[in-house]
Amino acid sequence: MRLVIAAAAVALVMTLSCSTAPTQAASVTGPSYDDDGKLVRPRGFRSWVAVGASLGLSYREGSEGSGPGVFKNVYLEPSAYAAYRTSSEFPEGTMLALAIHETLQPDPELSIGQDGHFPGKLIALEIAVKDSSHFDDSWAYFDFGGGDDGLRETAEPFGKDRCFDCHAEHAADDNVFVQFYPVLRDGAGDE
Amino acid sequence: MRLVIAAAAVALVMTLSCSTAPTQAASVTGPSYDDDGKLVRPRGFRSWVAVGASLGLSYREGSEGSGPGVFKNVYLEPSAYAAYRTSSEFPEGTMLALAIHETLQPDPELSIGQDGHFPGKLIALEIAVKDSSHFDDSWAYFDFGGGDDGLRETAEPFGKDRCFDCHAEHAADDNVFVQFYPVLRDGAGDE
Repeated sequence: MRLVIAAAAVALVMTLSCSTAPTQAASVTGPSYDDDGKLVRPRGFRSWVAVGASLGLSYREGSEGSGPGVFKNVYLEPSAYAAYRTSSEFPEGTMLALAIHETLQPDPELSIGQDGHFPGKLIALEIAVKDSSHFDDSWAYFDFGGGDDGLRETAEPFGKDRCFDCHAEHAADDNVFVQFYPVLRDGAGDE
Repeated sequence: MRLVIAAAAVALVMTLSCSTAPTQAASVTGPSYDDDGKLVRPRGFRSWVAVGASLGLSYREGSEGSGPGVFKNVYLEPSAYAAYRTSSEFPEGTMLALAIHETLQPDPELSIGQDGHFPGKLIALEIAVKDSSHFDDSWAYFDFGGGDDGLRETAEPFGKDRCFDCHAEHAADDNVFVQFYPVLRDGAGDE
């Protein structure tokens, strides 16, 4: 009997360790905080579900510049993605990563044509967290740095006027800019 | 003893079912073909690892146009990603998806600024497969359509002159345009 229980326990543990599979309903892999209440940088966001990629989208009114701007790739933690696909709601514990990359144009020796733009090195990483147990407004936004200084291990939330207010006003669904993300907006994940 | 073996078997099965975790070596989830040898469209590519996003990169010499061009999002099947991260080689069975989206500019009512571009609806889906057991040149490329007609269930490979030759000549690593993909090029997946 003990071994049966052991087998069941192993199966349960292994199942839980599979919780990033987007097709299964799963508890959400939420944020972690250190003893000072700072958000610990979540690892492995490059394997999260890429919901959006944009070039030069401006985050401030009147910020239109002359160049193409920067690449912004947005990733949604897989268990939150699975929950959103099922319920059309972002669950408590949802995390999104915004990876900002410099913009490059093709080197004729490395490419075919010379048109277009693609992402260069990472210059900033920001994380959005929905966690009503920690934040009065549910959502908070964190800057983990990037660029030549590398990424920070922990971060405190931005002030409300830096991210939250704009997301609350302009984002299509629960502070998330779903209007820019085909995978959430068009049911593109059904493919 | 039987139960010990059963427990071990359960653990093994559950471990294998976790093969999308990028940090563990795993067998590759490769392509499937129908009875006529056509590639069956792989499902769920939106949850694969997004390795690149570009805007307006041209695939043909002299194809430079006047507009911003189209968004090209490239996804690598997770077990192949895990293998590449370990070995720096694309294993047999590697699949990449190229999702081509129309390009939109922000509607002032939906956004903050009016600059920049983001992906509109899907207009084409192409799949690259590395499978030496099926293709003399290892790699083959498939067009699954898209746009208003929707996606095809199966596809035959493009002729060599449509994709393969250009990839073989210009791609930085084993027919893959790694030079455009931060996650494969810069070790960005370490974050």
